[in-house]
Amino acid sequence: MMTEKIVLAIDIGGSLTKIGLVTRTGSILEKRVFRTNGQDPFNIFLEKLKSEIEILITSLDSTHKLISIGIGAPNANSLTGNIENPPNLSWGPLTPISKIIGETYNLPVVLANDANAAALGEMKFGTAKGMKHFVVLTLGTGLGSGIISDGKLLIGEHALAGEIGHVNVDPDGRQCNCGLQGCLETYASVTGIRRTVFELMAEMSADSPLRGISFEDMTGEHISDAALAGDAIALKAFDKTGEILGSKMADIVAHLDPEAIILSGGLSKAGDILLNPIKRFMELRLFNAYKGKVKVLISTTTSSDAILGPAALAWSALEKDTPNSPNS
Amino acid sequence: MMTEKIVLAIDIGGSLTKIGLVTRTGSILEKRVFRTNGQDPFNIFLEKLKSEIEILITSLDSTHKLISIGIGAPNANSLTGNIENPPNLSWGPLTPISKIIGETYNLPVVLANDANAAALGEMKFGTAKGMKHFVVLTLGTGLGSGIISDGKLLIGEHALAGEIGHVNVDPDGRQCNCGLQGCLETYASVTGIRRTVFELMAEMSADSPLRGISFEDMTGEHISDAALAGDAIALKAFDKTGEILGSKMADIVAHLDPEAIILSGGLSKAGDILLNPIKRFMELRLFNAYKGKVKVLISTTTSSDAILGPAALAWSALEKDTPNSPNS
Repeated sequence: MMTEKIVLAIDIGGSLTKIGLVTRTGSILEKRVFRTNGQDPFNIFLEKLKSEIEILITSLDSTHKLISIGIGAPNANSLTGNIENPPNLSWGPLTPISKIIGETYNLPVVLANDANAAALGEMKFGTAKGMKHFVVLTLGTGLGSGIISDGKLLIGEHALAGEIGHVNVDPDGRQCNCGLQGCLETYASVTGIRRTVFELMAEMSADSPLRGISFEDMTGEHISDAALAGDAIALKAFDKTGEILGSKMADIVAHLDPEAIILSGGLSKAGDILLNPIKRFMELRLFNAYKGKVKVLISTTTSSDAILGPAALAWSALEKDTPNSPNS
Repeated sequence: MMTEKIVLAIDIGGSLTKIGLVTRTGSILEKRVFRTNGQDPFNIFLEKLKSEIEILITSLDSTHKLISIGIGAPNANSLTGNIENPPNLSWGPLTPISKIIGETYNLPVVLANDANAAALGEMKFGTAKGMKHFVVLTLGTGLGSGIISDGKLLIGEHALAGEIGHVNVDPDGRQCNCGLQGCLETYASVTGIRRTVFELMAEMSADSPLRGISFEDMTGEHISDAALAGDAIALKAFDKTGEILGSKMADIVAHLDPEAIILSGGLSKAGDILLNPIKRFMELRLFNAYKGKVKVLISTTTSSDAILGPAALAWSALEKDTPNSPNS
């Protein structure tokens, strides 16, 4: 009997965790989404994760064989298999997630920074198919980044490359969960644009539907819906976000000379309202040699497809181990 | 009779051009230095370059065989072999230097951005021997950068990676020769610190030996000599330069996670006066995960050894073509 090999993909986000079963060609057979509740200790998360995985695995019939697990998580170190000091999760300095999950399911586990996994996913299954040099920015609770250079993930000396969310916008700027001030992710993320909206509601006197929503309740969708309806405060918030992010994207280009910068995550769903000011300010600040050469794209994978990142991670590792291995 | 193969290395700088004959192991047999005079047209430079090369080649005896030419130059494109729009040289939009030099001497020519060549030189013959992930910043007339990732030059999609001299410090900041405002090289370079000294002479009322020197005449040595003698203006200029450069080096780390950042070029000769504020501000602005992990080093090669960069370029290309070829 032919069995199809599949991998279990786990994407741990600041707000939501997504898990799924994915084939070699990127078909998602089953998926589930649940709240990460990152303010709780890791053990509570782990119990929830295991019960959700149990539900997925139970759905498998005998024509599928689970062979590997890919995990994308914030501040994950691919060399050690640990999650280290995640600023947006209260899990402490070191969570040995690869070891725990590997021992639980007796399968190989590949771990990477969530945005690094997302970049691999874009190259293998998504918007960056065929590209060799690009950068993915995931605009969610924070700002994650994954860099592909010459067709491979740029890892760095300590497997910590691509923390572009923590480049500095303003040394006297907003407090970041990481302890620094003025990090890019305090401006250019779902959380960042919400802070900008609250700053603008203080500065401006314009009426706005956003004035009826508390800081805790306000989502990225509230802000993009208001902008699409012509709300002055929301539009200005997207302009300011686009100026800051576009300028820093010009700096990214001055380091890496990519073919494209691909935006994904919650904030990217705003589309042209975000894309237009980003493109304008990036081009304005680009060094001559790069002007007109670098694409800015919004990821075409949907938010729940975030599992394609860790799936690509697992499949890439398997292909490295056994080149040209058959699919059955 | 045994003949030793050698390469001709040409380092074209904003102020000086250095040429030399270099063995496979990095021994410099002969070298010459002359002024680039970048404000003159390219043809005047070319005649001077050819006459200087003639003198070098004439010095060769029959035990040496010249087999290749490596060229490092500002804004050089390794894919096309052209120098494109160099902001500090008045040579126009496109100078096909590889073709011209290759046809003149009937030898293979390898061209790269001067700082990319310098990075290869540091890895093959210099301070970065054995390192796989590092960044070289050349602090001269401008600020050049070369990035080594996983033991290879990071090239980018259009062979234009590593223009870190043009990341933005302040959108309303100093005019840059490239047409932008507030580029890093307008602060952190020999030219940049001179501008800072003049700004500080306007702001501060302290006496200083630097007040007797015109803008045109002031060199990096004047400024570092004054700082070493305790001059308040020169010391403050190094502090400000170190703050700006150290902060941007924290951003470089957030992109690339290198083992080290290596400083070379005229300004790096100031040593600890520059290094101390750079290290302090870089550490201050580093994302937690990187703190204490990234070395800041000053290149041990002397300024006239800048030809080791283009020499490494030529030798690396030869080794790629004919792996394990004998040395005679």
